[in-house]
Amino acid sequence: MGMPRLPALVWLKTYDRTALGDDLMASVIVTIMLIPQSLAYAMLAGLPPEAGLYASMLPLVAYAAFGSSRALAVGPVAVISLMTATTLAEVVAAGHGSYGDAAMVLALLSGLFLVLLGVLRMGFLANFLSHAVIVGFVTASGLLIAVGQLRYLLAVDGEGHNVFAMAASLITKVPATHLPTLLIGVGAILFLLFVRSRLGPLLLRLGMRPRLVAYATRAGPVLAVIASIVLVGALGLAARGVPVVGDVPAGLPSLHLPVPDLALVLALLPSAVLISVVGFVESISVAQSLAMRRRQRVVPDQELVGLGAANLAAGLSGGFPVTGGFTRSVVNFDAGAVTPMAGVFTAVLMGLTAAFLTPVFHDLPKAVLAATIIVAVLSLVDLGAIRRTWRQAPGDFAALAATMIGVLTVGIEAGIVLGITVSLSIHLWRSSRPHIAVVGRVPGTEHFRNVDRHAVQVCATLLSVRVDESLYFANARFLEDRLLELVTARPEVKDVVLLCSAVNGIDGSAVETLESINERLRVAGVRFHLSEVKGPVMDTLKRTDLLTHLSGEVFFTQHDAMQALAGEAPVEPDRDRPATRAALAGAPGRD
Amino acid sequence: MGMPRLPALVWLKTYDRTALGDDLMASVIVTIMLIPQSLAYAMLAGLPPEAGLYASMLPLVAYAAFGSSRALAVGPVAVISLMTATTLAEVVAAGHGSYGDAAMVLALLSGLFLVLLGVLRMGFLANFLSHAVIVGFVTASGLLIAVGQLRYLLAVDGEGHNVFAMAASLITKVPATHLPTLLIGVGAILFLLFVRSRLGPLLLRLGMRPRLVAYATRAGPVLAVIASIVLVGALGLAARGVPVVGDVPAGLPSLHLPVPDLALVLALLPSAVLISVVGFVESISVAQSLAMRRRQRVVPDQELVGLGAANLAAGLSGGFPVTGGFTRSVVNFDAGAVTPMAGVFTAVLMGLTAAFLTPVFHDLPKAVLAATIIVAVLSLVDLGAIRRTWRQAPGDFAALAATMIGVLTVGIEAGIVLGITVSLSIHLWRSSRPHIAVVGRVPGTEHFRNVDRHAVQVCATLLSVRVDESLYFANARFLEDRLLELVTARPEVKDVVLLCSAVNGIDGSAVETLESINERLRVAGVRFHLSEVKGPVMDTLKRTDLLTHLSGEVFFTQHDAMQALAGEAPVEPDRDRPATRAALAGAPGRD
Repeated sequence: MGMPRLPALVWLKTYDRTALGDDLMASVIVTIMLIPQSLAYAMLAGLPPEAGLYASMLPLVAYAAFGSSRALAVGPVAVISLMTATTLAEVVAAGHGSYGDAAMVLALLSGLFLVLLGVLRMGFLANFLSHAVIVGFVTASGLLIAVGQLRYLLAVDGEGHNVFAMAASLITKVPATHLPTLLIGVGAILFLLFVRSRLGPLLLRLGMRPRLVAYATRAGPVLAVIASIVLVGALGLAARGVPVVGDVPAGLPSLHLPVPDLALVLALLPSAVLISVVGFVESISVAQSLAMRRRQRVVPDQELVGLGAANLAAGLSGGFPVTGGFTRSVVNFDAGAVTPMAGVFTAVLMGLTAAFLTPVFHDLPKAVLAATIIVAVLSLVDLGAIRRTWRQAPGDFAALAATMIGVLTVGIEAGIVLGITVSLSIHLWRSSRPHIAVVGRVPGTEHFRNVDRHAVQVCATLLSVRVDESLYFANARFLEDRLLELVTARPEVKDVVLLCSAVNGIDGSAVETLESINERLRVAGVRFHLSEVKGPVMDTLKRTDLLTHLSGEVFFTQHDAMQALAGEAPVEPDRDRPATRAALAGAPGRD
Repeated sequence: MGMPRLPALVWLKTYDRTALGDDLMASVIVTIMLIPQSLAYAMLAGLPPEAGLYASMLPLVAYAAFGSSRALAVGPVAVISLMTATTLAEVVAAGHGSYGDAAMVLALLSGLFLVLLGVLRMGFLANFLSHAVIVGFVTASGLLIAVGQLRYLLAVDGEGHNVFAMAASLITKVPATHLPTLLIGVGAILFLLFVRSRLGPLLLRLGMRPRLVAYATRAGPVLAVIASIVLVGALGLAARGVPVVGDVPAGLPSLHLPVPDLALVLALLPSAVLISVVGFVESISVAQSLAMRRRQRVVPDQELVGLGAANLAAGLSGGFPVTGGFTRSVVNFDAGAVTPMAGVFTAVLMGLTAAFLTPVFHDLPKAVLAATIIVAVLSLVDLGAIRRTWRQAPGDFAALAATMIGVLTVGIEAGIVLGITVSLSIHLWRSSRPHIAVVGRVPGTEHFRNVDRHAVQVCATLLSVRVDESLYFANARFLEDRLLELVTARPEVKDVVLLCSAVNGIDGSAVETLESINERLRVAGVRFHLSEVKGPVMDTLKRTDLLTHLSGEVFFTQHDAMQALAGEAPVEPDRDRPATRAALAGAPGRD
């Protein structure tokens, strides 16, 4: 839709020194956030720390070239890293190659799938992840991640495929806790929570400028990292059993295309698809929010290509699946990034980090990384949203609960698939039983409303029925049943008008059903009419024989129909007449 | 809904001598049709002939007690018999007990499932079989059945799991054809076709009363049966290699409850579910058609109980799955059946047949039964409907084609499942990309129509958008994308009104999306309004916080909104302005 295949060409044309200054400033701030995150999420994904650094370089450059958002910050994120970890654990346990290779192939497959979706303009598929499923999935993943990180705080081995098994395994190992590690970890958590919720108001009270305050509160993780490195180094804690990151190879990633065997590809494919879709949904939401603030546009199908390119780059350079992160992108935007060049600068700074700073990370306690992960993911657990869903939309809550239960008991993928199935089933079930109302004329107007809700005029020989749903195979027979029931309860009816103002579309099955209704009414001596048929529906009907078979007419408005068909003066319905009451009883009154 | 659990109690109360006479007359005519059909469909199901007779006794009595249709004639039908045959062949090949036992268990399971659906009021599930899937399934089954019967005409063995393998296997065996059998079979087919299409007009020209003519043309199969028995007996053809029905045990079925093992039940369960659903769809269609002619009612959930009882009876008395047959029910109705007592009489007549007439069937050639099946199922092959679907509804055609291909290449169940999947996917895909139109006021009216289709008035700072679909998770983000795109293309817009006249429902995801649209527009300095919100949608919105967060208002009508928000006099849009044109280009014009 007018966006070139390489969106970078647009903003590069007008790129100037002001933009460069803004982007450079933003990239410094994002890098400070990204260093601890990239190390932590690599640990979460079950990979060595350098994989996190590598996943935060070339993917950012690739996204800058192909993505359509000006402010999205791409890199490893919590949920995708967890999905990567569980996927890798499974395929490596099944004997399909090494962890690192499998991670790269997973990123490549995910990248290919995203590009394919983008090129085929299939981004709409992500819409089938309903809000309820996303909330349930993110909340359950947050719990899963937090429980999974506890083993780093206790410095024990933990295992288990679901959250309950994991917790049980940890509890048996509490006696083996390494106390100094626990103290460091808990200290880091308390520090991070303090920075997140208390430091800002404090600094503001001390008179610091709000913008600086915002940056300071984002620097919490990097401060915790620095402080803990100094502490471990000074006290020689690594030698006393505190697990640390250890040696991180210095230097940039080497580019190479892993040559996977088919069995590995097939084993990774389903997870790659889900990781792609989940990553895209997370990314597109934040990209759209940020774009709207400056009235810019993100093009969903172009975003797929951008994220796909980022993942291909991750796969070629020793990384693992990445996507646009929420907090990181907001920081990037607030810090003044005006083009994706900020991402390129961030990549360069991460490259410098990988080249020169890796020795610094040797003494970084894993417990501090676990603490940053726990504090980050606990903000994903949105109990308010769950309560709200329960109160406002029971159907949505069912999908949410199914997703959470699936994720917590079986696994992430099972949870998502279960959630999608439940939400689609509920939607289909609802649309298969549409609201159908007998309508009458509001006295003195040309409006027609539900006889159950309003004092309206009806005519004994004329039955006007409104159906509030597009007609398709799953609800056509329901309409037929209800309509014939209503007619059967009213032996005096000679004309039936189906008011189609709420019918937005119609399929072949529904046309057949209208034919059948028409025919059944005809043999019963009743004429069948339509009114207020919309353009697209009329176009469909004109391609069929229904209009030539129709025993009645198609009226432009329901008012016209009543004018033409009311044999006697319309009257208010007598609600005590048994036939009326019986027929009305079947139709729960909504309008 | 007012119908007692035992509908028989209603009509028995007023049962009199006139009704008895009518029902008795109808039952004689139906029995004459049913004798050859029951033998033929037992053969089609891969069962001995007496199973067909048994399936035409107690099930009819059970349906008479529990069914809600006055004229439905229950018994073995072609498509269900074929499904039974393929199911039995599979489970017996897998070593789960004998043919006969498996058939009875299949009928029992099918009966239990139908009763369960009825008691839980889940009859609507059958609506998910779209018309296209049914046409595809019935047509393909007809072909499958016809090809499968050819081996009886040639008197050779035939095998193959799909229609192509079957045909290929038959072709290799043509040289082994038994000529006398082929002559009898082809003769029977020609005779039946003659009776079906030519005899009626001939008799009418000869002055016979139309009603008698109708009965005479239905007696074709029984005449073919009698003639062929006489022929085979007179010429001693059975001894010369013409395969005949042979000994049929005389007497009534013994009642017994087969005690199946769990493995057999599990193996049969999926097929039992599909057989139930397909049988129910066939049955309910004909029951509704007939009921409407006399302005009677059938209650779908009660029909489930009636058919369930019939299948339970079949399972307990040596039969196999049954349902309401189309032709047979129409004959029953036309012959004057006024209550299900006609079915009871038919059952008694079938009982007399089983008790006294079975020796007569010894010499009945299987080729004649095959001929009656072939002529019956060829009328199921409705090429006109397929052509019509292709022309009128390409989406429906895709589902139809998928079903046919599935049935013909893999099997009946695979075909149905594939068809349902395709038709649901197409529906969901459509509803996930609703029609969204920018609307303006038709000059001099309070009507608002698509700016692409009509010369309407718009106001530069006010964007009015109509969405033609209920809002739910699969299309909410699509609306958001389109809306933000439209606003981004119009920097002068200060107010956006979403015209909700075609929104019949809204779910939690869509509410969240409206919240998000509201928030994104707010940060861009644009107010977000709603207009013409329907009652049920408003009820949902009132349970959420959207209305308190809404930056704009909810207007009763779009006209009110325009009155309140148009800062300047509305003008006709300038279609040459690039922004307008770009925005319009995205919206294919429908209204």
